Amino acid sequence: MFTHEYFMRQALQQAQIAFQNNEVPIGAVVVCGDTIVAKAHNQTELLQDVTAHAEILAITAATQHIGAKYLPNCKLYVTLEPCVMCSGAAFWAQLGELIFGASDPKRGFSVLAPAALHPKTMVTRGILAEECGALVKQFFLNKR
Amino acid sequence: MFTHEYFMRQALQQAQIAFQNNEVPIGAVVVCGDTIVAKAHNQTELLQDVTAHAEILAITAATQHIGAKYLPNCKLYVTLEPCVMCSGAAFWAQLGELIFGASDPKRGFSVLAPAALHPKTMVTRGILAEECGALVKQFFLNKR
Repeated sequence: MFTHEYFMRQALQQAQIAFQNNEVPIGAVVVCGDTIVAKAHNQTELLQDVTAHAEILAITAATQHIGAKYLPNCKLYVTLEPCVMCSGAAFWAQLGELIFGASDPKRGFSVLAPAALHPKTMVTRGILAEECGALVKQFFLNKR
Repeated sequence: MFTHEYFMRQALQQAQIAFQNNEVPIGAVVVCGDTIVAKAHNQTELLQDVTAHAEILAITAATQHIGAKYLPNCKLYVTLEPCVMCSGAAFWAQLGELIFGASDPKRGFSVLAPAALHPKTMVTRGILAEECGALVKQFFLNKR
């Protein structure tokens, strides 16, 4: 039951909330064991804060929830490949595993900062990539 | 009067506050025109939040203060070269100018993410570098 697809679908639900709120539709969840300890969606518009990406909010919420600064035993699921900022945050959090949906060839870390993550962070990409990417594309199509 | 050294000394004062609070001693100020609109120091220990770097706190405080999401007409002074996360935040903020003190060859963005900043962001390095770097070195020497 607790597959990558299962948790990515939870992240996708967060992205859909962002979409409905006129935020760039990116969602994230943090999972420890089989338990979701944090859910977040992009809130840069609501908070008028460019650092309020889904990943940053999810990492911060997760550490607050578990009462520790580091997340070596946690997985971060995010619908879009993290940007440079968020991959740097994942490094400092010593994230155990990163799983993302769609790639972001323009601002994704794997192009701009390929060595940004902690060497121990496992990376899986492409989970529900089509759905995750389609939501972002639709958002920007609507904006034109 | 309002030289790079003047504002870097303000950032250094922030770093010293961090030092006194047993935080990795890094400080930052954001300047618009000749006015300091935000001051911050690293608070990762106090907040138990790995994203609470001086630059992130200063950028967020500055945008809140001026009521805008972007900082194209602002300068960020920071005592140590920003990490990958903070350079990514500076990108999203469309920062006008980055001025930093000591270089960080280990975690600094210029090694790990040289294209992270916004193409319009001007960069000046090495302002009060020795003092800025000495404070960080002293902090880690005390920790041993």
